[in-house]
Amino acid sequence: MHEHLNIEPIGIVRTDSDEIDTHWRSVESEIHVSEQYTAGLQGIEDWSHLVIIFSMHDAQFKLDKHLVNRPRDRDDMPEVGVFAQRSRFTPNTIGMTVVRLLSVAGNVLRVKGLDAIDGTPVLSIKPYAPVYDAANEPLIPVWFLRLMQG
Amino acid sequence: MHEHLNIEPIGIVRTDSDEIDTHWRSVESEIHVSEQYTAGLQGIEDWSHLVIIFSMHDAQFKLDKHLVNRPRDRDDMPEVGVFAQRSRFTPNTIGMTVVRLLSVAGNVLRVKGLDAIDGTPVLSIKPYAPVYDAANEPLIPVWFLRLMQG
Repeated sequence: MHEHLNIEPIGIVRTDSDEIDTHWRSVESEIHVSEQYTAGLQGIEDWSHLVIIFSMHDAQFKLDKHLVNRPRDRDDMPEVGVFAQRSRFTPNTIGMTVVRLLSVAGNVLRVKGLDAIDGTPVLSIKPYAPVYDAANEPLIPVWFLRLMQG
Repeated sequence: MHEHLNIEPIGIVRTDSDEIDTHWRSVESEIHVSEQYTAGLQGIEDWSHLVIIFSMHDAQFKLDKHLVNRPRDRDDMPEVGVFAQRSRFTPNTIGMTVVRLLSVAGNVLRVKGLDAIDGTPVLSIKPYAPVYDAANEPLIPVWFLRLMQG
């Protein structure tokens, strides 16, 4: 039905943090943009936040296991579909996170709050613009609140 | 340097609106999810907003033309890099927008605010969770404010 898309990473995540799972909001990491794209960072320092789209390349989506499941395999969680949760195991294993831009030096962005491990391929970098990216009074399920509280 | 990723769309955008460019925030469209993934929508109605990641398949990024340019070719705009603006012409031409979820019926999501044309391949659907997706007091450049005012 659908054609396959051929996508080439534009950069890579570098971090020495091993606490991505638990404390990613305070994690600082670097994004090393491929040098052919360095000029594309011009003016990025005028934005405070970025949208990072990346490939969770170590995750492998399995239809029978990941299409519907209980978040983090917790018994106290409801069964929800993969598109109704923030699982790493999604079709295409594409991740997306809003990060704070700390600094720019050459082809290296330093950011805060990226929940991606060292070596993660980056597919797209966009400036965070509320007109596209902000939700007005978003509603979330109670189970997700509980999940975030640990 | 980087391996290529092989990505298969999980669904497709259906809309009869031809005002995506100018009034996308009020546009209502449908996302038809591939039927093998229908069960993955379970529980999605408990979220008010979704993050839609899609392929701007009709746009073609050219390094010499799109790496640095003036947004919308306007003389009153500064020269900014592709990663510092929300151009359609980006490497990998991956788009991302936060939409409001209006309704779900079978494998069809009805959404509001998607700036994607009819036939756009959808790569990922995520529930909008402020903990991942909201920016705290985002700063944007003055030129972008002017651009949005038309």
